Amino acid sequence: MSSLFAKRMEKVPKSFIREILKFTQNPDVISFAGGLPNPKFFPVEEIKKSTVKVLDSHGAQALQYSTTEGHLPLREFICDYYWRKKKLKVTPEEIIITNGAQQAIALLCKTFLNRREKVVLERPAYLGAIQAISFYEPEFHSVDVDEDGINIEQLERKYKEHKIKFVYSVVNFSNPTGITYSAEKRKAMAKVLEKYNTLFLEDDPYYEWRFTGEHLPSVKSHLYHNVIMIGSFSKIVSPGFRIGWICAERDLMEKINISKQAADLHSSTFAQYVLHQYLTDYDVEVHLKTLRKVYNSQKNAMIEAMGKYFPEEVRFTRPEGGMFLWVTMPKHVSSRDILDVVLPQKLAFVPGDTMYVDGTGFNTMRLNYTNSPEDKIEKGIKILGDAIKKILTETKTAVPLGY
Amino acid sequence: MSSLFAKRMEKVPKSFIREILKFTQNPDVISFAGGLPNPKFFPVEEIKKSTVKVLDSHGAQALQYSTTEGHLPLREFICDYYWRKKKLKVTPEEIIITNGAQQAIALLCKTFLNRREKVVLERPAYLGAIQAISFYEPEFHSVDVDEDGINIEQLERKYKEHKIKFVYSVVNFSNPTGITYSAEKRKAMAKVLEKYNTLFLEDDPYYEWRFTGEHLPSVKSHLYHNVIMIGSFSKIVSPGFRIGWICAERDLMEKINISKQAADLHSSTFAQYVLHQYLTDYDVEVHLKTLRKVYNSQKNAMIEAMGKYFPEEVRFTRPEGGMFLWVTMPKHVSSRDILDVVLPQKLAFVPGDTMYVDGTGFNTMRLNYTNSPEDKIEKGIKILGDAIKKILTETKTAVPLGY
Repeated sequence: MSSLFAKRMEKVPKSFIREILKFTQNPDVISFAGGLPNPKFFPVEEIKKSTVKVLDSHGAQALQYSTTEGHLPLREFICDYYWRKKKLKVTPEEIIITNGAQQAIALLCKTFLNRREKVVLERPAYLGAIQAISFYEPEFHSVDVDEDGINIEQLERKYKEHKIKFVYSVVNFSNPTGITYSAEKRKAMAKVLEKYNTLFLEDDPYYEWRFTGEHLPSVKSHLYHNVIMIGSFSKIVSPGFRIGWICAERDLMEKINISKQAADLHSSTFAQYVLHQYLTDYDVEVHLKTLRKVYNSQKNAMIEAMGKYFPEEVRFTRPEGGMFLWVTMPKHVSSRDILDVVLPQKLAFVPGDTMYVDGTGFNTMRLNYTNSPEDKIEKGIKILGDAIKKILTETKTAVPLGY
Repeated sequence: MSSLFAKRMEKVPKSFIREILKFTQNPDVISFAGGLPNPKFFPVEEIKKSTVKVLDSHGAQALQYSTTEGHLPLREFICDYYWRKKKLKVTPEEIIITNGAQQAIALLCKTFLNRREKVVLERPAYLGAIQAISFYEPEFHSVDVDEDGINIEQLERKYKEHKIKFVYSVVNFSNPTGITYSAEKRKAMAKVLEKYNTLFLEDDPYYEWRFTGEHLPSVKSHLYHNVIMIGSFSKIVSPGFRIGWICAERDLMEKINISKQAADLHSSTFAQYVLHQYLTDYDVEVHLKTLRKVYNSQKNAMIEAMGKYFPEEVRFTRPEGGMFLWVTMPKHVSSRDILDVVLPQKLAFVPGDTMYVDGTGFNTMRLNYTNSPEDKIEKGIKILGDAIKKILTETKTAVPLGY
């Protein structure tokens, strides 16, 4: 029956994360796999009160169809947020509400990307973006990431050799590596984008999770034109609302709006109203401050445990924020082999090769620290360290069979 | 900057309805335009209580990421619903939750439809489907609709002449015509589909709005294989949740799931939990019974007013249910001209040509009766009748200018 399906389906990888998330729904499992916020800190009571208020005051509107762009007061909140946090002047006409950042990426591809056009991703890149973009059958190009962000020389070379449609990246505490672009890299990035006059999709879901150091200006602040920003309330308030947004120049907005209309008319009116009421009635900064401490502490617990339990050959990132650490093992060690060892011990993580579009990265893995308490983090890292040592020893002592 | 956009954007019509909905947000406007439920009857208090219960008992889960397929108890409810209402045996593995029926259509195109493949729609067809399908750049084929459903001879001819990928239609109280397939037509449809072994997208959002007459078996009940059903809670409970579903055979589900993952990971967990709690704690049948009476009475008021105020040359459908009436005027009368006359008088409707993919239908219009109270319906139909008479007289007496 496979010929029944559209050709584009052949190119799309199934999300390893979504598959593994089913396994991690078992509460006995320690999961470093997803990018889930710690549910203990969801503002449940506040959201309850916000819902009651919305339904008492605007019940009929909150349950009715709405405009495709989304709830105006929520879009105004986002504009205000950009101004307060990033000193970016944005109007509500430049904002459209989406179902999380994932739909934002998908709609932008739908609006801009033709088959076989060239897209630049970091090596490694966010898995959800790889999946969403793959549907539009582009030609992927990967550029390495240094400790301070994308490798500009490689990026320029790509531009010289190819007509690039857009670059997608997460500049703050990247998913999957945790790496943040330095101030210089952001400027250099803007320069390259300006020189070659192409789109940049600046996805920034982890901005609020800076634990240490100073916030740096967005690429958009260096180059207003051609930079489309993607945002999400999933990590700030709750992923269960599925509310994110696209922020793009007005002359791009009409077409993006048509893409959204055809996709699902508009995002949940109910979720938008409740979220906006929560953001109005409560100081989300207080919530964020608490959570930053928790997450930072969990991150430090993971790094400390890795120092203790991981063999010396293994390298890992030490991010200043975000939700992930990136682990690189010696070239001959496959994280899939390690996953086979730890899954029966009820530990899950995501093998790094799923985040490469060029079939490499088998010796890497992504670890999430926001969804597990510190005792579980230590326990999980010990299991993982033992598994790495086991595989390292086996591969070192393995006698080649000669065929 | 237009070359920046993907080629597919050139083929997609902007939704006239979504545009006109902005105008109809003014409470002074009488709107026969959208397909909006009457907000007076939203179960606001019940949804409030349901939300409080969800957040008290499952707060963390309702606000967290979830599986792509959707909330299992909600999918079980849908299976039970199919059994109770349509005697169809369906398992939760055959259900995936979507953002309303609109996303269901979009995801099915993404999963199955290649560029230039052939899609059969009714003439006229649901505008949202035309828009969603257009993105995938198919070749559209239209088949006329008789009073008892699609014209089977024309449909067979299409199959003989072309390799058809799928047929899409609304068999109960169609949007836009209000027409319902007879029992014979459903059987005949199933036969044709079986003979040519192609997919049928059976969209059924208005099933619950049968005011008179008997329910008829779905096409799916005649032909399990190849029929994909689309459903929605938008008309039953609230469009603000944006919750619908796809019901497809298990061997099609994996690919549909991947399409949904890439589109937005999953639909709002929060909305799914609240909706399911409402459906569990309250008897939705009581709500539906009340609304059926209201809508039937509004429909009758519209038909009565049309008898009173419309000139004799104008024909219209008399549906047994649903949300729409379809009006056909003499060939030389354009509903766009009539819209120009009535808009300044604060009356809105949707010109019928937007629902044709072959550039015809200018003498038709779609009227919604569910969103207006009876006094406004009478007032609006009088304005419309006067406008039609005016345009009829003008076009009759117009002297051709000879150039």
